[in-house]
Amino acid sequence: MSREITFLIAGGDLRQIYAAKALAREFKVYAAGFDKNVVDFSGIEHIENINDMKERVDCIVLPLPASNDGVFVNTPFSKQNIPLTSLTSMLKDGGTVFGGKFDARTLRIFNKFGVDTVDYFEREELNVLNAVPTAEGAVQIAMEEMASTIYGRRVLITGMGRISKVLVKILHGMSADVTVAARKYSDLSWAEIYGCRAVHTSELADSIQDYELIFNTVPALLFDEKILKRADRDVLIIDLASKPGGVDFEAAGGIGLKVVWALSLPGKVAPISAGEIIALTILNILKERGGADD
Amino acid sequence: MSREITFLIAGGDLRQIYAAKALAREFKVYAAGFDKNVVDFSGIEHIENINDMKERVDCIVLPLPASNDGVFVNTPFSKQNIPLTSLTSMLKDGGTVFGGKFDARTLRIFNKFGVDTVDYFEREELNVLNAVPTAEGAVQIAMEEMASTIYGRRVLITGMGRISKVLVKILHGMSADVTVAARKYSDLSWAEIYGCRAVHTSELADSIQDYELIFNTVPALLFDEKILKRADRDVLIIDLASKPGGVDFEAAGGIGLKVVWALSLPGKVAPISAGEIIALTILNILKERGGADD
Amino acid sequence: MSREITFLIAGGDLRQIYAAKALAREFKVYAAGFDKNVVDFSGIEHIENINDMKERVDCIVLPLPASNDGVFVNTPFSKQNIPLTSLTSMLKDGGTVFGGKFDARTLRIFNKFGVDTVDYFEREELNVLNAVPTAEGAVQIAMEEMASTIYGRRVLITGMGRISKVLVKILHGMSADVTVAARKYSDLSWAEIYGCRAVHTSELADSIQDYELIFNTVPALLFDEKILKRADRDVLIIDLASKPGGVDFEAAGGIGLKVVWALSLPGKVAPISAGEIIALTILNILKERGGADD
Amino acid sequence: MSREITFLIAGGDLRQIYAAKALAREFKVYAAGFDKNVVDFSGIEHIENINDMKERVDCIVLPLPASNDGVFVNTPFSKQNIPLTSLTSMLKDGGTVFGGKFDARTLRIFNKFGVDTVDYFEREELNVLNAVPTAEGAVQIAMEEMASTIYGRRVLITGMGRISKVLVKILHGMSADVTVAARKYSDLSWAEIYGCRAVHTSELADSIQDYELIFNTVPALLFDEKILKRADRDVLIIDLASKPGGVDFEAAGGIGLKVVWALSLPGKVAPISAGEIIALTILNILKERGGADD
Repeated sequence: MSREITFLIAGGDLRQIYAAKALAREFKVYAAGFDKNVVDFSGIEHIENINDMKERVDCIVLPLPASNDGVFVNTPFSKQNIPLTSLTSMLKDGGTVFGGKFDARTLRIFNKFGVDTVDYFEREELNVLNAVPTAEGAVQIAMEEMASTIYGRRVLITGMGRISKVLVKILHGMSADVTVAARKYSDLSWAEIYGCRAVHTSELADSIQDYELIFNTVPALLFDEKILKRADRDVLIIDLASKPGGVDFEAAGGIGLKVVWALSLPGKVAPISAGEIIALTILNILKERGGADD
Repeated sequence: MSREITFLIAGGDLRQIYAAKALAREFKVYAAGFDKNVVDFSGIEHIENINDMKERVDCIVLPLPASNDGVFVNTPFSKQNIPLTSLTSMLKDGGTVFGGKFDARTLRIFNKFGVDTVDYFEREELNVLNAVPTAEGAVQIAMEEMASTIYGRRVLITGMGRISKVLVKILHGMSADVTVAARKYSDLSWAEIYGCRAVHTSELADSIQDYELIFNTVPALLFDEKILKRADRDVLIIDLASKPGGVDFEAAGGIGLKVVWALSLPGKVAPISAGEIIALTILNILKERGGADD
Repeated sequence: MSREITFLIAGGDLRQIYAAKALAREFKVYAAGFDKNVVDFSGIEHIENINDMKERVDCIVLPLPASNDGVFVNTPFSKQNIPLTSLTSMLKDGGTVFGGKFDARTLRIFNKFGVDTVDYFEREELNVLNAVPTAEGAVQIAMEEMASTIYGRRVLITGMGRISKVLVKILHGMSADVTVAARKYSDLSWAEIYGCRAVHTSELADSIQDYELIFNTVPALLFDEKILKRADRDVLIIDLASKPGGVDFEAAGGIGLKVVWALSLPGKVAPISAGEIIALTILNILKERGGADD
Repeated sequence: MSREITFLIAGGDLRQIYAAKALAREFKVYAAGFDKNVVDFSGIEHIENINDMKERVDCIVLPLPASNDGVFVNTPFSKQNIPLTSLTSMLKDGGTVFGGKFDARTLRIFNKFGVDTVDYFEREELNVLNAVPTAEGAVQIAMEEMASTIYGRRVLITGMGRISKVLVKILHGMSADVTVAARKYSDLSWAEIYGCRAVHTSELADSIQDYELIFNTVPALLFDEKILKRADRDVLIIDLASKPGGVDFEAAGGIGLKVVWALSLPGKVAPISAGEIIALTILNILKERGGADD
């Protein structure tokens, strides 16, 4: 991977600016789609008006999601619009457009121009690394909402995926009493190996009243009215599952349970890290493509 | 230790109410010095006016500090005053007054009446257990103040006492990169055994610019202007040392460093746990005195 | 899953006896293929001669591997032979034969008789749980072979699969300085999340001289003569990869490096646990099949 | 501390040779009291006959114990005798004799000659660091003696001193189920903070039958016949307490319990580390004395 590669970061929020800063430690980086007064652009060449972008770059980096409408880049930090079609002329031949969660319409535009696209949100390491700010953010919410320590609490985590694994590690550092509920026996084994109690999801109802803090990571309605009714009235439920979430929020409200539905935590609690993760992932992709001359 | 013991919790903040609740799981507990609408007193006999207290109890529990003036009980949650002298008539012969950080004047009053006093704040286990909400609260502050994860940060902890040990454990759960600065070689050895880097305090100036997050637990001016000037401009310093603290706050302000002086965290971030720790400590003291018939 | 289920454990080594004992805590268990004086059979009905087995059972449990020749059960603890064909008459209609690493010939026999077979060695939880005795055994070997503590050693682990994950956890408990080498960027991210350094396998040669202890879990020739020549002369290499292993043993011998090729550790270092893992896995399979009336 | 300091390592076992090697990385080191063929002395000036030592050194390092009889240096690796009195002429004026567990007679000799002595075995950091090979060695014994994994075992540790703290850390890395028995409530609190169950020593008899593995670190007869009779017959007891130990070995033998009394583990299981710890401690002492010009 050559040090001569150039990047244009176009649009997005704080994460993209921090991605730009991370890339700018080693590469020439332009940034467009951010109104000037929002942030510090030291080390980055800030393009105030996208039409002023005269250079062609090797890589264009779009945010997550890349576009909300398949027409313009997603630019929450700018009043200007950047048409997706305008980007193709800023890219060198053989260049790549990186973005997160490309929609079909956006992809079609780039395909039409023969432009190579890579969706960094589909990379496993990005999702692994994003589990860290998600888990930290979830623990921060628990700390803020509870009038007791995390230490010593009986905590339930549902699922044993990426976020759960990081949660288990953090909560053990705090000496919480952690139980993992999962369906797969191998996940239950991992939970025990990592020092947790394990309960099969099908038997969760039997012990639900024991938990003082619950982190749900499973995007399925595990916490329906029936099980919520058996929970401790003082429990705090933090739902980390993407839509539609794992909790019957209406039922929980009726019962008087405290539920926090915490989505998109990386960008909220740790935009610096979230941006650096995007930058790292893009560099990994370039390294893999670089092949032998890396 | 008999289950027949009775308690009067007099004064204090949320911690004392939670101490009362913890004791009330097993014992008869009266509570005075809390205006009615502040909190839920289920399980506790709430004495709205101290003059209405007709029973004599085995143990009176005063807050931390027990008194601010050596005349009245410290009752931040009540508009009423409770004279310390009024308490002696509510105590059975041979009963005990528990309190935290008794001042000389308060002690003299109880001594005059021949009343036994025990300062629970002098108990090692209370200070050990209080290190937990202190460390958790410090990490919570770090999470709230920083736009990046704790994971991967270069963190400095000064001192290797109780709070530092708990901080090390929590921060390792988060896979931070932790260095401990201490003066005693045995403390440096413990730091390494617990997986940290270790630096002698006398050599701290050499590496100070490396840290992104600093927790100070040493109540001495480690962070004077000279060393602060060498620190990274983006460092966050969380000072946990009691007065006068360990940071030259004025110098830090002048340089533009972010410093949070976080005192009395247990009562602020985890009053439930802080109260339960007081209750547990009192029960330990009673157990030790109970001797063989425990 | 009914408590009425009956088992015949036929053949195998200590692991199968401990599997039998584990099952016998809840179920009726027969054991055949073990000469009497080898072990204690309390709680189990020991069948000295397979021809004396008159009852029909719900489940027959064969060892790992089930058979070495596709004709007889693998019975290292017995001088008697148990023909695979003889087992079918001991199984109730609808019963199941469990075994590990069934060969094609053995499977054909059971298929011919219409007997249901399940290979427990293909179950993920068995392989997850077997990573524990493997990793513990590997650490035990390291302790026995080295004249220094594990604490503080610079340790390399290749791969980030099941065994590596357990190794990382144990070695961190010992405060070793652990580096993981892997090819997948997501594995490198996991290594870092779990507090290790991470190095891409393609760059391993650059740091190989730094390690004092190496655990190889990758069944590919990572450690060829070229890389071995760059290693520290005092390094200890423990190869946990199944045949052909991951080390050029001849080259290592020529250079004078110490290599231990440690295979089949669960049965060797922890036959009790290895047996219990087999029993647990079989019960999981039965639970899954039991469906709603579990 | 000047790099010009010279050392004579006189007598001892492998630990002293490794202490010599560690010091020889930075300083000029002579070694006497080791017969030539025992070990590799690269980097060290080996004095085969003590009478051939012509140089005077700044520091003489004696083993642990320094002398068995108050007349000769303790030289288990040599057939030659080194009279303690002969050493004084090899020491520069103002030099220091380091040793472990000096007896009164030995001290009297050096005092008579006005020679400064320092007992490194009295240093806290040496005892802290020695807890590591002791705990690792104890776990190694447990692994070797047990036919099951450490993972998942119900383990009791008595005491919460240095060795126990390291044991707790290692055993948690292995996800054992650890209970600590101690007398001081603050020790019980630490045990819980470090993720263990805690039981007051006075109540140990109530749960003794639950443990599968016991590490005793308390040099008092905790395990008398009465309590041993209540223990599980399959328990393994590893006694790490110095003489007279903490177990009634005769009673244990009568009952048929397996007890291993493991003393002086650092020198046995990790002589390299034990030697490096001695070297490090001596350097710490010299640094402290070096004062400002360090």
